[in-house]
Amino acid sequence: MAVYTHVPAEEIDAFLTRYDAGRLVSAKGIAEGVENSNYLLETTNGRYILTLYEKRVDEADLPFFIDLLDHLGERGCLVPRFIPDRTGKRLQQLSGRPACLIEFLTGISVTEPTPAQAKAAGAALGQMHRAAEGFSGQRRNALDLPGWHDLAGKCGDHFDEIAPGLGDRVAQELAWLDAHWPSDLPRAVIHADLFPDNVLMLGDQVTGLIDFYFSCTDIRAYDLAVTQSAWCFSNDGSAWHADRAAALVQGYVESFGLSDAERRGFQALCRGAALRFLLTRAYDWINTPADALVTRKDPLAFLRRLDFYASASPAELLGA
Amino acid sequence: MAVYTHVPAEEIDAFLTRYDAGRLVSAKGIAEGVENSNYLLETTNGRYILTLYEKRVDEADLPFFIDLLDHLGERGCLVPRFIPDRTGKRLQQLSGRPACLIEFLTGISVTEPTPAQAKAAGAALGQMHRAAEGFSGQRRNALDLPGWHDLAGKCGDHFDEIAPGLGDRVAQELAWLDAHWPSDLPRAVIHADLFPDNVLMLGDQVTGLIDFYFSCTDIRAYDLAVTQSAWCFSNDGSAWHADRAAALVQGYVESFGLSDAERRGFQALCRGAALRFLLTRAYDWINTPADALVTRKDPLAFLRRLDFYASASPAELLGA
Repeated sequence: MAVYTHVPAEEIDAFLTRYDAGRLVSAKGIAEGVENSNYLLETTNGRYILTLYEKRVDEADLPFFIDLLDHLGERGCLVPRFIPDRTGKRLQQLSGRPACLIEFLTGISVTEPTPAQAKAAGAALGQMHRAAEGFSGQRRNALDLPGWHDLAGKCGDHFDEIAPGLGDRVAQELAWLDAHWPSDLPRAVIHADLFPDNVLMLGDQVTGLIDFYFSCTDIRAYDLAVTQSAWCFSNDGSAWHADRAAALVQGYVESFGLSDAERRGFQALCRGAALRFLLTRAYDWINTPADALVTRKDPLAFLRRLDFYASASPAELLGA
Repeated sequence: MAVYTHVPAEEIDAFLTRYDAGRLVSAKGIAEGVENSNYLLETTNGRYILTLYEKRVDEADLPFFIDLLDHLGERGCLVPRFIPDRTGKRLQQLSGRPACLIEFLTGISVTEPTPAQAKAAGAALGQMHRAAEGFSGQRRNALDLPGWHDLAGKCGDHFDEIAPGLGDRVAQELAWLDAHWPSDLPRAVIHADLFPDNVLMLGDQVTGLIDFYFSCTDIRAYDLAVTQSAWCFSNDGSAWHADRAAALVQGYVESFGLSDAERRGFQALCRGAALRFLLTRAYDWINTPADALVTRKDPLAFLRRLDFYASASPAELLGA
């Protein structure tokens, strides 16, 4: 959430001459997305996002993201396309970093979604899954069940510094997921991080899905579980919003559908989604000094979600 | 250079209903200015900056800044005006902070100014000084000569952790300035921080002067000295750009003028300007952990400027 690489405006202006994108009239570093450096540019043609990729995004993955958003955009999804330069090249170097010029989309990210907004988000996720059919790109999800085991191992004894007993709780949950993970469900390209931050809206209309840098190939219905865990609780995880959850699932079912097998596996997927964010937040918590200027996100907000998912009725999670 | 206070988009949208400023269609936290939280807003009417004031800006000073930019804007200066709400109010509260909606200006900040750009900046500074005539507001410069003594006292023994002998050098310079400071020169409202960051340009044209949060009442020609120290050296202070300096002074003289007394006092003003930034940077350096995520600006970049100013010929500084 910061600008890590400062690019002089003169360099941005020179960079733009590779494109049919007009001349620079404004450039503002914006606090957005995962650990990339982002600039909101205004040119004589319109607005663009300039992204420089920092260490958290692997340059080798960029062609996957570029091709995916092209595929989705061509099929009518509201996603930010990577802009080709005059030679057709979309991945560049700027200030020593991989860099791309990206379409700017209007819309704002809601913080407290209404059921109507949750329904629209579910529908947009389903439309994205529909549009992704036929996309041939593949990317392994580093944050899958084996990845969670790795991450838990790295956190080790430090879990209990966050909350007493957390290490045991995580170990038990991993054992449960090993036994119950619905590995045979259909796999596809998923967004894998569709928090409200990553959905642009105007009123109840979705105007864009953004930040695909966790997108990967995994169980498709897991994407709905991640989205539900992100949209249907209070921020601290203490309150479950059944109305949002029912609307989100309804929107998804109406636009894409959910099979009986996916419904049967949904509770396990939700428990997995809650554990995934619990683990990455715990890892960041343990590895970020308390006095650092970045805000550490509370891992316990996802322990509370996990507790809810573990004790809920399967029907409740599907809004029935 | 970060967004310190996160304001939910729903709150920004509700905030905008106080104004005739349209409905929110985009909000991006931007990395800009002193330690405030800034959002670049797009509404159905146009673009605006939303600023929330953090601890470094004293709320009691905001009416001074608001009135000053109104005064300057009414006299044709390209400065970002504070937007009044429907009741005429320009200073509000949002998310527990003083907050203002501010005009958005296009233009980019140059990093390596050309002489033509330095001349335009000098001319814009002179136009600002002309427009400020008749402004009745007063604000003490906390970073004046007595303020430098205070700051040096606070840095104390820590100077020599930055560079051996720095403490003695600062003490000698303060003694020299006490003896030579041209306190009888005309005083006026000055910007006091007109770095290239704070000048928006398109090509060689100035499109805006921004970030007036250090503006205050002090020796008017000191503003030109500050601007020169910011525009006419390489970033690390090791190279003096005589061509930029001559152009900057020429632009200022053509648009406002410089009296004989101001010319005679200019070298002392330049030494003071270099010391002012050396001291604030040294203070921040000493008080910021080396591993913090904010970039510490090198105090020695202004020690090098000070060394240059102390040994230069007075005529050289005026571009003669």
